[in-house]
Order: sequence, then C-alpha cells, then structure tokens
Amino acid sequence: MEGMRSMKRAVVLVSGGLDSATALAVAKQDGYDCYALSLDYGQRHRAELDAANRVAAHLGVVEHRVMKLDMGQFGGCALTDPSVSVPVAGYVDGIPVTYVPARNTIMLSLALGWAEVLDADAIYIGVNALDYSGYPDCRPEFVKAFQMLANTATKRATEGRPIILQTPLIAMSKSEIILLGTQLGVDFSMTVSCYQADNKGNACGVCDSCRFRRQGFAEAGVPDPTVYQ
Amino acid sequence: MEGMRSMKRAVVLVSGGLDSATALAVAKQDGYDCYALSLDYGQRHRAELDAANRVAAHLGVVEHRVMKLDMGQFGGCALTDPSVSVPVAGYVDGIPVTYVPARNTIMLSLALGWAEVLDADAIYIGVNALDYSGYPDCRPEFVKAFQMLANTATKRATEGRPIILQTPLIAMSKSEIILLGTQLGVDFSMTVSCYQADNKGNACGVCDSCRFRRQGFAEAGVPDPTVYQ
Repeated sequence: MEGMRSMKRAVVLVSGGLDSATALAVAKQDGYDCYALSLDYGQRHRAELDAANRVAAHLGVVEHRVMKLDMGQFGGCALTDPSVSVPVAGYVDGIPVTYVPARNTIMLSLALGWAEVLDADAIYIGVNALDYSGYPDCRPEFVKAFQMLANTATKRATEGRPIILQTPLIAMSKSEIILLGTQLGVDFSMTVSCYQADNKGNACGVCDSCRFRRQGFAEAGVPDPTVYQ
Repeated sequence: MEGMRSMKRAVVLVSGGLDSATALAVAKQDGYDCYALSLDYGQRHRAELDAANRVAAHLGVVEHRVMKLDMGQFGGCALTDPSVSVPVAGYVDGIPVTYVPARNTIMLSLALGWAEVLDADAIYIGVNALDYSGYPDCRPEFVKAFQMLANTATKRATEGRPIILQTPLIAMSKSEIILLGTQLGVDFSMTVSCYQADNKGNACGVCDSCRFRRQGFAEAGVPDPTVYQ
C-alpha cells in the first residue's frame, strides 16, 4: 500500500469558517492529499459543522472525519455554555468569553494523533494572530510551543521525521485571507463564521466574528456572500 | 463562591492503573482538592474505566469525569484496533504496537482545558520514564515540552499564573511506585494494569503491562493483589 502513495499527506483542521477553508485550499496548493478533521465539541453553532462538510467536499479532501468530544461539560465559555451570553458590544480588553479553554491545544493534539496514524507530513490550521480576538492559543508563541511538543511527542519524531505544523494565515489580516482564498477558488458562501448562526447557517451580523468577517470583505473589495438573519 | 475555596485544586488523570492511582494519592498528599479525569477512548480493556471509578471514589476526589472520545476510529494501535494483536513476547526494540498515537498529548490537553475552567493550579499525570515501555510521550523531554506549551496556551498563563504539570513518578521504578502507593494507602487491588483484562478486571499475566506489574510487586516485597485469569 505504501508503495502506491504518490502524494504527501496533510491533516487539515476544518471548522467550517472562512480561515480554515482558506488553510485547506493552501494545503492543496502546497501539493498535499488532504485529510480534514473537525471537532464536534458541543458548540452552539452547529451550522459550523454543516459548513465544514460542504467545504471539505468542495475542496476535494480524501477523507473528512468529525470527532465528537463533549467540551461543553467543562462549561465556562459562551460558545459551549448556554448560561454565558455571546458578546455583541465590540472590542473589549483581554480575552473574550468566547474563548474555549485549550481548544486549539486539544484540536492540534487530535490532529497529531491522526497524522501519526496516516504517516502524514504536516498539519494545517487556519489560526491568525492579527484578527485573533485575544485568544492565547492563536499566537505565534503558541504555534512554536506546539511544534516543539510535536517534535518530542510522536513515534515519527523519534525517527527524525517530525510532523510539521503549518499556519499559513498566521500573519495575515482578514482581508488578505479573503483575497488569498478567492485566488485559490474557495467558495466563501459555503463558510459560516458567526458565533450564533441559525440552523441554516445565516449570520447574526453583530458578534465579534461577524464584524471581523464583514469588515474583511469590505477591505478586500470582494463581494460579501454572507446571508444575514 | 471563590471566597469559599479553602484548598488549591488539581486535575488528575486517572486511568484505572497502578501508576495513576499512586499519582492521585500524591496529589492528595500535596494538599490538593482533586478532580479526576478519565478518557473513554475506545480502549479494549473497558475494565480500566471501572477501575478508574473505584480508585477515584476510594481516594475521595471532589469529582470524576469520564470524557468519551473515539480514538479507535484512527486505528493503528493494538489497544484500540481489534485487527492488531496485543504482544506477549516480552521486550522488543523500539516503540511497541500498544502505543496509542499522541495519547498523553491528547489527555493532557483535555486536562488543561478542564484545569483552566476550574482555575486549578496543577495537573498530575502518572507517567514514568524508567518502565515507560518505549512510549515517546512518557519521557522527561515530552513533559518539559508540554509545560512550555501550557505556559503559552492558556488564559491563566497570560496572567502570569501558569498551570503546573506534576509528574511525581517520572523517575521511579515500578517497585518504588508500589512502595510509595502502599505508604499513601492506595488499595492496588482496585487497579487494573492489564492490556487485555477480562470484564471483571482479571489480568492476563503475560502482556508487557502485566509483566512489569508482577515484577514490581515482587521487587517491592509487597503481596501482589492482582487476580489473574
């Protein structure tokens, strides 16, 4: 079977949002056979997972897996805990209540496990530090620390073939991501960014994520395909 | 509520085995209110989870959560994939097929998320490097790398209060762990170490884990309470 592999492999974290769709398109452009991984972590906005399905099919992944993990039982986050409201008031100092504790650490750990089983060479994640909304696990320091962990944590790494964490959007603004995705043929109408989208994936237009997205399309001069509620 | 907290908190990974039971007893001894976390990752030896329940209750944790996560769907490991046999032939060079890809990385990431929600000060895990059976994610380098990741990944860390990863057994042999646990009042008859225990938790006596355990009791001069099949 190994002899039949003509392409290198990448695990790509696909959330259904604009950023991860673009990261997936970059991974394809970089010549990888792509394996999409989504996490069903009890998020309120289930429309995200429908979007992840559409995006993965649209961009031709080899396989798309959705892992179920009940992070909602930990509580403490507006995206998973119904007792915490999603903020709509704009920028506030510090880390917002939409921060899911250790989310990127957990998602990257799962991607690392699958990458090792697939003998994949890379993991792609669409984090970006500029529009990162104050999340600690979207910063370059975090990415660097996870790479160092991956360099010690896996069987591949002990054989001198560590899995490389790719963050192609890390230094890009939302408008730059939209321009890049548009060049690479991403259909952004399939993506959902809203923290409180309805069942059809229609956006609220007022949460932090909606505001970054809307502003990004405006700055990029690209027509915004988002359907608002 | 916060004002009522008289004790510092720790999340303790409890697998149902001998090592994690001892790590939990050490965390209690260190003065922590303990929150036990177990992962139901599709392991063959479900008797482990029953043992985790018994151990958590026996050692008086505040709360015990079992998170379900289907790592078996990744395949590639004898402990989760029914098509791979558990080895019984003794030590072989390199990393054994019982290695679960990125398991400790994944479990520590989940512990980190819960610890952040609980505002816990520490995470305890019962890894040890001497009897580590060749797993890359039981080595001191791995532990150090995860601590560095935790130092950048969480909201607490950005506030200068990183969560500390405690590995009290890292440099101990199996017999030393058994002596320590015995001193701290751990009832090892409640624990299950076997990779292929039956439904009652009775051990095969021939897998790597059974052999390390049996030898540990013999070297410690402590009666072995394990029931073999």
